[in-house]
Amino acid sequence: MMKDDLNRNGIPMSLTHTDDQGRASMVDVSDKPATVREARASAFVRMQPATLALIRENGLKKGDVLAVSRIAGIQAAKQCSNLVPLCHPLALSKVGVEFAFQEEPAGVAIETYCKLSGQTGVEMEALTAASVAALTIYDMCKAVDLSMVIENIALLEKSGGRRGHYVRAEDETKQP
Amino acid sequence: MMKDDLNRNGIPMSLTHTDDQGRASMVDVSDKPATVREARASAFVRMQPATLALIRENGLKKGDVLAVSRIAGIQAAKQCSNLVPLCHPLALSKVGVEFAFQEEPAGVAIETYCKLSGQTGVEMEALTAASVAALTIYDMCKAVDLSMVIENIALLEKSGGRRGHYVRAEDETKQP
Amino acid sequence: MMKDDLNRNGIPMSLTHTDDQGRASMVDVSDKPATVREARASAFVRMQPATLALIRENGLKKGDVLAVSRIAGIQAAKQCSNLVPLCHPLALSKVGVEFAFQEEPAGVAIETYCKLSGQTGVEMEALTAASVAALTIYDMCKAVDLSMVIENIALLEKSGGRRGHYVRAEDETKQP
Amino acid sequence: MMKDDLNRNGIPMSLTHTDDQGRASMVDVSDKPATVREARASAFVRMQPATLALIRENGLKKGDVLAVSRIAGIQAAKQCSNLVPLCHPLALSKVGVEFAFQEEPAGVAIETYCKLSGQTGVEMEALTAASVAALTIYDMCKAVDLSMVIENIALLEKSGGRRGHYVRAEDETKQP
Amino acid sequence: MMKDDLNRNGIPMSLTHTDDQGRASMVDVSDKPATVREARASAFVRMQPATLALIRENGLKKGDVLAVSRIAGIQAAKQCSNLVPLCHPLALSKVGVEFAFQEEPAGVAIETYCKLSGQTGVEMEALTAASVAALTIYDMCKAVDLSMVIENIALLEKSGGRRGHYVRAEDETKQP
Amino acid sequence: MMKDDLNRNGIPMSLTHTDDQGRASMVDVSDKPATVREARASAFVRMQPATLALIRENGLKKGDVLAVSRIAGIQAAKQCSNLVPLCHPLALSKVGVEFAFQEEPAGVAIETYCKLSGQTGVEMEALTAASVAALTIYDMCKAVDLSMVIENIALLEKSGGRRGHYVRAEDETKQP
Repeated sequence: MMKDDLNRNGIPMSLTHTDDQGRASMVDVSDKPATVREARASAFVRMQPATLALIRENGLKKGDVLAVSRIAGIQAAKQCSNLVPLCHPLALSKVGVEFAFQEEPAGVAIETYCKLSGQTGVEMEALTAASVAALTIYDMCKAVDLSMVIENIALLEKSGGRRGHYVRAEDETKQP
Repeated sequence: MMKDDLNRNGIPMSLTHTDDQGRASMVDVSDKPATVREARASAFVRMQPATLALIRENGLKKGDVLAVSRIAGIQAAKQCSNLVPLCHPLALSKVGVEFAFQEEPAGVAIETYCKLSGQTGVEMEALTAASVAALTIYDMCKAVDLSMVIENIALLEKSGGRRGHYVRAEDETKQP
Repeated sequence: MMKDDLNRNGIPMSLTHTDDQGRASMVDVSDKPATVREARASAFVRMQPATLALIRENGLKKGDVLAVSRIAGIQAAKQCSNLVPLCHPLALSKVGVEFAFQEEPAGVAIETYCKLSGQTGVEMEALTAASVAALTIYDMCKAVDLSMVIENIALLEKSGGRRGHYVRAEDETKQP
Repeated sequence: MMKDDLNRNGIPMSLTHTDDQGRASMVDVSDKPATVREARASAFVRMQPATLALIRENGLKKGDVLAVSRIAGIQAAKQCSNLVPLCHPLALSKVGVEFAFQEEPAGVAIETYCKLSGQTGVEMEALTAASVAALTIYDMCKAVDLSMVIENIALLEKSGGRRGHYVRAEDETKQP
Repeated sequence: MMKDDLNRNGIPMSLTHTDDQGRASMVDVSDKPATVREARASAFVRMQPATLALIRENGLKKGDVLAVSRIAGIQAAKQCSNLVPLCHPLALSKVGVEFAFQEEPAGVAIETYCKLSGQTGVEMEALTAASVAALTIYDMCKAVDLSMVIENIALLEKSGGRRGHYVRAEDETKQP
Repeated sequence: MMKDDLNRNGIPMSLTHTDDQGRASMVDVSDKPATVREARASAFVRMQPATLALIRENGLKKGDVLAVSRIAGIQAAKQCSNLVPLCHPLALSKVGVEFAFQEEPAGVAIETYCKLSGQTGVEMEALTAASVAALTIYDMCKAVDLSMVIENIALLEKSGGRRGHYVRAEDETKQP
């Protein structure tokens, strides 16, 4: 982190993952304090109402579509640093993945939660969990609906660390 | 695949990745012919115009934000079957990731391409590449903009296999 | 494979994964024909009746203990060549994991199935799936019962390949 | 961990890896103290006496069957959280794998040891090491003996953590 | 592969892993014939004579330094496409790793061999096996000698594929 | 670590990664203090001047050869404990990879840097990053030059830990 390059809110004014010559660089977190870090992220799998109905029906039996998606999301959070090249390896202490059915537009809303006591935030882990949980729903339903779209992969909330508590503004989260 | 359970267009009417009791199941592709399979997928990272300007500026130097994102997408396509639990392991013969800057709304549009001669389609690989390429852009820019949203992860086109050529309808692809 | 070192039933009389000096060696399968290979394997997680009752009760709700175990087994089959050092990487065309509750002795019986059209058998993949499915049940129930034992990880059946069809003898499969 | 749901010995009376609706959940270990955690686990690969003789003979040369199995076990312990979905990623400080030949019944006994200073126990790591070490022996000997059985994958001892020292009761460990 | 961009020996005159704008690109191998591909590669771990003596002594007991190195090399070959970003995933049919002690200069010479019937060469797999085998020797001996140097990671021979048989010229292989 | 087996400079006189019977063993680092550990390592990819010219030319465009190599090196450092069997899993706080063009002999010099606050050194991570960065350059240039050689993979500097500061002697680093 180039310390001189912060605006008065402590927000960097330049990209921290590239050095001053634009080269990729893993940020040094050695000097950051180990604090409790939490993050929540969202994703939404928009689909035809008939597809949603099939998932619901499956859910009434054994729930495997969402169960598989949940496990995929949890596993992906743990793999985040192998997927996103400049992420630090982390020892997550908690990963959660929850689902809600939505009617208008039809689809499955995903919310993930990651927690850690460490030197770096867990927002990428929460976003990765949401993305892979969504991809897994796509995979399990694609035989009936190739037109599904994954939307709204976004950070909802983040706490811990130098930059304090971030909560997504309301108008940012809603789908236009 | 429950063969009796197709409608007259050859589209399954039920989920193929769960059995008749709703349990997760990896589809048996042994009897499918090995044909050339191709898929293209999209993602869009919506961001503040100032964030886009920083990526462009970086791109004028060494281009590492997009270079890192491209590599992350290619690597993720190869990891697809480890991320999405019911995907088959595949020996991809080609993965490509391309970018375009977009002004209104501001952001980076990602398009991926996967190819294989094999028994199963490569749409999940293309979607996974798009998702992880987008997550990587988020990661590299998050220090300046936590409010970025990943949108429009969608299958654009798919060819090869029993179900023939799929091209996404125009109105499906546009951002609402 | 040391071709001169087979007995009259075509069974090797020495270890094929070490050379004549005892050094580890990955068997060359280039000359083997690509045929359909199938394998079924078992595992049994023996536990206290009260533990089994909790899994059953969970199963009546959402079934996640077995759902997670199934996914873990499927994923592990795909990772087999990264876990068992001299296994060949394979493009499995099908992996299945099934469960049965057993009362006497109490526990969960696991049966796995792997299939491939290729040059090498899939017995290690089926055994790996069974092992990791069992470990996952242990993990999810260990808070109530550390004394569970995983038993009877065995190959039940194997077909395809030079050595023909193998079916486990009856007395071998029964729990003592 | 549902704190109200412990019996008077501090043992949970319900599954901790599923929530009250039966859904898979990664236990939050943030509040647990970081203490030294140790675990020992066992596995036994039962085989025909002639198979054991071949391993011994190999052992008299270069010992690669057991050397490969040992490495596979150590590597698997480090991969535990990628195999068992609800396990936490851990920075193990020590993994050991030992072997003993046994004559009656014939086979190789495996004992593993894991150690960590951290917030969560290492029993799954020790059990995973034992399982994969056993699978590797099976793999290296399967050309001469498909009827081998892996038995007695069990936790022998565990220390550190809230629940104190666990030692497996004698009658639990013996093979019936 | 830009087909127009080959000299008269069929050797490309420009980099094939970047497109005409210099962007990373995974070469499309779909149209290449599936032939038997083989490659041999070398590495040399130069060390103090006393370090070599310790490895030899260890070798006289159980040989684990070289046994661990061999397994690490074999496993790394299978991981090549996850390490080297633009490599294709391959189903290797054979990997071998051999060692020779050398006195002047003192060190361990490594030679690896990979084989495949497929659409792309296996030289990167052989080179990766050699590199990781060498790193493993370094790791196991570093407590006594931090000054070891890994040298001469080179392709010795390569056959199969459009460009025919390559054998390293003699003067290239010798250590200066 | 066999504590009695150190010479008067605190340097072990025997291999620490094998026990007194020569068996592979992961060193127990539980009792080591958590200190800041740093390491720098080198690698050199020797090549024909024409090959170097192509990389330079590529660098003048988008720089992807080195960008891909840099990412590969960073990712490999994080995978070190999965590649080198007796390495401990680490939560690296910083990885850096730098390049310099060299004319005589022609080639690309690589220098890597790893940092961690922990119980064990990061020299293997730095060496692994250097090796895989070099392999990636080889991969991206091999279409024009199969005769490249990777040389001089060496530890340049190491600090933190019981054995203090190590700096490579000058004459050791120069290529003979």
